[in-house]
Amino acid sequence: MSKQYDLLVVGGGPGGYVAAIRAAQLGFSVACCESNAYADPKGEPRLGGTCLNVGCIPSKALLHTSHLFEEAEHGFAEQGIAVGTPVIEVGKMLARKNAIVKQLTSGIKGLFKKNKVALLNGHGSFVGRKQADGGDVWQMQVGDDLVEAKQVIVATGSKARHLPGVLVDNEIVCDNVGALDIAAVPKRLAVIGAGVIGLEMGSVWRRLGAEVTILEALPEFLALADVDVAKEAAKVFAKQGLRIILGIEIGDVKVSQKGVSIDYTDKEGGEHRLDADRLIVSIGRIPNTDGLAAEQVGLQLNERGQVEVDAHCRTNLPGVWAVGDVVAGPMLAHKAMEEGVMVAELMAGQAGHCNFDTIPWVIYTSPEIAWVGKTEQQLKAAGIAYKAGKIPFAANGRALGMGDPTGFVKILACAASDRILGVHVIGANASELISEGVVAMEFGAASEDLARICHAHPTLSEVVHEAALACDKRPLHF
Amino acid sequence: MSKQYDLLVVGGGPGGYVAAIRAAQLGFSVACCESNAYADPKGEPRLGGTCLNVGCIPSKALLHTSHLFEEAEHGFAEQGIAVGTPVIEVGKMLARKNAIVKQLTSGIKGLFKKNKVALLNGHGSFVGRKQADGGDVWQMQVGDDLVEAKQVIVATGSKARHLPGVLVDNEIVCDNVGALDIAAVPKRLAVIGAGVIGLEMGSVWRRLGAEVTILEALPEFLALADVDVAKEAAKVFAKQGLRIILGIEIGDVKVSQKGVSIDYTDKEGGEHRLDADRLIVSIGRIPNTDGLAAEQVGLQLNERGQVEVDAHCRTNLPGVWAVGDVVAGPMLAHKAMEEGVMVAELMAGQAGHCNFDTIPWVIYTSPEIAWVGKTEQQLKAAGIAYKAGKIPFAANGRALGMGDPTGFVKILACAASDRILGVHVIGANASELISEGVVAMEFGAASEDLARICHAHPTLSEVVHEAALACDKRPLHF
Repeated sequence: MSKQYDLLVVGGGPGGYVAAIRAAQLGFSVACCESNAYADPKGEPRLGGTCLNVGCIPSKALLHTSHLFEEAEHGFAEQGIAVGTPVIEVGKMLARKNAIVKQLTSGIKGLFKKNKVALLNGHGSFVGRKQADGGDVWQMQVGDDLVEAKQVIVATGSKARHLPGVLVDNEIVCDNVGALDIAAVPKRLAVIGAGVIGLEMGSVWRRLGAEVTILEALPEFLALADVDVAKEAAKVFAKQGLRIILGIEIGDVKVSQKGVSIDYTDKEGGEHRLDADRLIVSIGRIPNTDGLAAEQVGLQLNERGQVEVDAHCRTNLPGVWAVGDVVAGPMLAHKAMEEGVMVAELMAGQAGHCNFDTIPWVIYTSPEIAWVGKTEQQLKAAGIAYKAGKIPFAANGRALGMGDPTGFVKILACAASDRILGVHVIGANASELISEGVVAMEFGAASEDLARICHAHPTLSEVVHEAALACDKRPLHF
Repeated sequence: MSKQYDLLVVGGGPGGYVAAIRAAQLGFSVACCESNAYADPKGEPRLGGTCLNVGCIPSKALLHTSHLFEEAEHGFAEQGIAVGTPVIEVGKMLARKNAIVKQLTSGIKGLFKKNKVALLNGHGSFVGRKQADGGDVWQMQVGDDLVEAKQVIVATGSKARHLPGVLVDNEIVCDNVGALDIAAVPKRLAVIGAGVIGLEMGSVWRRLGAEVTILEALPEFLALADVDVAKEAAKVFAKQGLRIILGIEIGDVKVSQKGVSIDYTDKEGGEHRLDADRLIVSIGRIPNTDGLAAEQVGLQLNERGQVEVDAHCRTNLPGVWAVGDVVAGPMLAHKAMEEGVMVAELMAGQAGHCNFDTIPWVIYTSPEIAWVGKTEQQLKAAGIAYKAGKIPFAANGRALGMGDPTGFVKILACAASDRILGVHVIGANASELISEGVVAMEFGAASEDLARICHAHPTLSEVVHEAALACDKRPLHF
């Protein structure tokens, strides 16, 4: 006898669990299947996906600890706090991180109970399609069970791309999973890939004492970010001692029990070898469609291996949707959640919609980097006339009080209409400051609107205010 | 020969210096006079007023240092950061604070130069009024000079209210000035007044090791804040060891070279004596009109000693305006700045306006407290039907990563229209989170608007998002 639901969500990450909860709130009978136990000691499937288990959440815990460690080492003396030389106890740091992950993943199980979402243990694979009640019903195998659902949301996420021929053992060679569980601070850490994960993990272990070298194939640093932000970030990271080498080509990677040696060619064609005790490979992520048996029902994938969807996350099959990292768009948890809510509401006949123009990006380095909307180079490429207001944190009282006056806020607005087209922040708490920018852009705010809105003093958000004033060349504090 | 300007701004605090800069930007010839040298070693007048010199800015520097000190003492071990017992070097802490103040106050001198605002050394006093160029010209004495200006902005700020008969020597008995310069951590610190200053300064010295007792005459704690916020704050502060006694009446205060003893009656009528090494008196502030010679020209003050103004900061005299702490309204630097900009723009014939409904409030304790708009008790009193969404930080991944999951976000929205009427935050970074609430309220956002706006993950601002969802009883993560 099969289990029957209105909706089966395949995958319990941010896109999947949010879709499941929202659909249940809207009155559907919902199940969500998850097979990945991550590090669960009992081997039970853990909700929250990459983000909660081996991504955003554990990395932020380590970033926080390592930030405080660096403060204690380099910032305390000037403030008059005398401590002995700080020592990092990596085991305790990781245990705290694991406890946070456990609390949050268990919390989602609680949310499932509260919202009456059934949690099924196992990976979901398409088996077939049948007609019932005048509509399609999808049959899927989940563990030992056959599950039938009128609608299916594929939310299987993504996994780390590995280097061809280089086995990730998560001891010597780590992807995002192992990078979060290195048992002792390596003396020399190599990172391949200067994207978000490489920069965040490189920062954690550098702060704790590792010599970190990041190798990046692209010739440009942080090409997705605004050009000024990328330039500032490169400058600051270099000053922190994060060695970043751009435009390289990776050659042989030799792994032994003691470490790793990486041959690479620099952009001038010079041959080099980098020896390190550990290697983190963070060269992108690939959508998870293994085990889904997409071909069994004719679910269409695209040439990048993603499930092909329209702007409303509809696949080529009626009643089958896909959200999050397994479809196109930025691989961000909050983008997946937005899509999950949209699909649940569309299923319920509501006007679900996702505004991809106002999805914020965040990199949790120090300084943090966050932005929403267009970069200056995107506006130039599109031929859109714009004005820019850029104000540093250097003269901001709160930033000085925090001892962290690095970075700036830059606002880009349409030259003709003054509508805000992009907000870019590099500095302390950028991750929180960006929310004001997102709200403003969702309301179609002009830079003058932000300029005329009162900002509490003394806060970092005053720099957003000044950047808005600067779009009209009338900053008050610069 | 008198000096002549279009505008003389009396007082170089946030209201005054911002008004001066904005007016100069708009083409007026502007002077700003300031007589207070605060702690300037050369006795030169310092710009920035109470806020920069002996208020917001130095207090935030001390709050930051003392927060880190407390983290080092109580939070580091759990995170795996081993340090010896931290020792606070108060002299260094104060020197850093003084350096920040110096940098910022000097910075405003630089802004005056850049914007061509003349800085006059001396207090401004009204001398008389004459007719010239077909309009009124105000004559004022500034130091040894007679200054004539077509318009005057009174921005003389406020000073601490003292206890009758208790001399503030800023050694044993301190107001806001001395509270920022206590040379060694007192063993026992008494604070009279549980307002913003009392709570912030009490927190600083408690974190550094003082036994702090705050005596408050009002029976209710933080009566201005939302009732739930005040309740949570009282609970958290008590847990931190901040002893707060409400509803007391102060009796004899005896000061010796060694300390202070304070007799007080509790709300049940019991008599008590509190002995302490230092006392901070923070029982409110009174507008500065001494030395202004308001009576010389008939400038109207009200019964509270404030300069009487209309909603556009116009006094009873043509061409004379007043802004900031010297007029009615919350004594907040950003409120003064808003008024300063408004007046400068009105002078230039623009449509200057100040929205007093969206002035945010912040208290920089830990957790921070910030709000904008109406409190629940205000809505009840006004008979406005509302709905509330309240979500704790306890389940927020970023808050857990930061080791600081205290507090909540509470959004109040109109029951009929869903328009947001108030946003209340108690928790880490509340000061920055509130800016999203202010922007939303300025745009007349409904709670559903905030609920439908993407919030970056993992951030504290997700709790604002969830609180908005909770207004419609559909939180996703609670």
